[in-house]
Amino acid sequence: MTAAASPDASPFVALVDWGTSNFRLWLVDGEGNILGERQSADGMSACAAENRFAAVLEEHLEALNAPLSLPVIIAGMAGARAGWLEAPYVETPTALSDLYRYTVSPEARRPVHILPGLCQKQTGPFDVMRGEETQLAGVIAGGIETGVICMPGTHCKWVDLEEGVVRRFRTAMTGEVFDLISKQSILRLSMPGGASDLNEAAFDHAVLDAFAPTFSLTTSLFSIRAAGLLSTPAENEAASRLSGLLIGAEIAGMREFFAGGKTVHIVASPKLSALYARALHLAGADASPLDGSALVRHGLFAAARKLFIEV
Amino acid sequence: MTAAASPDASPFVALVDWGTSNFRLWLVDGEGNILGERQSADGMSACAAENRFAAVLEEHLEALNAPLSLPVIIAGMAGARAGWLEAPYVETPTALSDLYRYTVSPEARRPVHILPGLCQKQTGPFDVMRGEETQLAGVIAGGIETGVICMPGTHCKWVDLEEGVVRRFRTAMTGEVFDLISKQSILRLSMPGGASDLNEAAFDHAVLDAFAPTFSLTTSLFSIRAAGLLSTPAENEAASRLSGLLIGAEIAGMREFFAGGKTVHIVASPKLSALYARALHLAGADASPLDGSALVRHGLFAAARKLFIEV
Repeated sequence: MTAAASPDASPFVALVDWGTSNFRLWLVDGEGNILGERQSADGMSACAAENRFAAVLEEHLEALNAPLSLPVIIAGMAGARAGWLEAPYVETPTALSDLYRYTVSPEARRPVHILPGLCQKQTGPFDVMRGEETQLAGVIAGGIETGVICMPGTHCKWVDLEEGVVRRFRTAMTGEVFDLISKQSILRLSMPGGASDLNEAAFDHAVLDAFAPTFSLTTSLFSIRAAGLLSTPAENEAASRLSGLLIGAEIAGMREFFAGGKTVHIVASPKLSALYARALHLAGADASPLDGSALVRHGLFAAARKLFIEV
Repeated sequence: MTAAASPDASPFVALVDWGTSNFRLWLVDGEGNILGERQSADGMSACAAENRFAAVLEEHLEALNAPLSLPVIIAGMAGARAGWLEAPYVETPTALSDLYRYTVSPEARRPVHILPGLCQKQTGPFDVMRGEETQLAGVIAGGIETGVICMPGTHCKWVDLEEGVVRRFRTAMTGEVFDLISKQSILRLSMPGGASDLNEAAFDHAVLDAFAPTFSLTTSLFSIRAAGLLSTPAENEAASRLSGLLIGAEIAGMREFFAGGKTVHIVASPKLSALYARALHLAGADASPLDGSALVRHGLFAAARKLFIEV
């Protein structure tokens, strides 16, 4: 997909969100206005084997007629060990506004800066993130410097943010486990046909089950299959119950993050945001969805300003 | 695989354990002594599509020179809805010695009896078993009529047995979830090379983690991956930790079964038995491994006696 750059605009920097399976690039001016945009499936996985990172980047920049000297700033898996050039993790607690200091620059025909991910060794169990830290910088750019941020997805990140500093964070494998169990375990037989509407009663009931002090995930899953054999549940009941058990278990496991009545800011697609907000309300928590669509770009732009203007 | 029948023996019945992916048959005399034995990959999955059940059974019997009128008794998935002929679940609480009353007989050239599975609707969450009930009948035949039986595997069954009656039971998807997560999730990258020796310290530590009141499985898994990125764990540490988290979570979820100091009788392969016994000891429970290899045959033989001699 291509959006043509306005011919008379003067680009300030190219911002790149380079994930495992997706590539996204924006050409922006000094105010952060978008002058051109590219998106493709040239993620880290597609580029790593033949080390196509530099070539892919140049190809996309050329398509937008970007000047040869235009600098580029990149967040995401391009900075992983298996990526273009490793940008070593920065350890928590860490100020997100300082991450630009730890960018690494691979060999390229123009200035290229890859932002680092975050790791946790002391402030909680071992954990890592790569890409989400730049979304968090975007959250800060949007005015939220202190709070609990919940970022659902394949690997859900919960983050304790305090005056722009990531104090600690924790990952739940909720999305990946939902995917594996719903598509590949015996439970797949009880949820044919893929996505369907939420069965609110089944979801809520499952979330509340997962909040019980004696709850155990693996000993609760099989009843979904048994219910399909012993009764005639509604078509969307099994998937909604699985979703409720997993999201409920995640929220129960993250209680320490929002204890004491803290608001949980949710960064996700509208559909997923609504599910998490619903479950958080059942936990008595305050949930506030954030528009996540532009966060990476805002975080990249904030880092670019630090790198090229403010310093 | 074939064991030749002794030429002058007089078979009393053929016993069949017909699972999803395996077929096993024993020809026995009136005392239960094995006269011949067959094993193959003709499980339910391989037979269902073209309804080869009768043909496969006759082929194996012929190979053992079984008399044309010899009766057959079958346990397992051959009695599932997708099997040869559905043997409807018998609901708990139920006396295992009575299951022979609920066999079904498919059309065949000889008397064939398929034993039913068990279901639970009132004595706990919806649950089902098919095949394990015959192993349980074998446990009873071995002299244990009252106790807690733990049957680890793909779908682990915990059973509350009282004077030969299954009061209630519960399934944990521990084996299947271990398989999916270790082979297909992001954690696979931290546990290459498949099975290796147990890292006892990592296993024990994980089991104890899973016993904590605030434990949550999905929020604990990712630290295994992060540890692989941030430190240099021993080669067998990641898989042992995953195993400990999952078995620990299962045992914690099944606490009500062995509360009050009840001994847990474990029915599994020696290796898996040892893992469960180790984790149960950490929970302060008494664990006693049972030799599971002959249980199905003993259960089938007990049902055959009821069907053909005692009645």
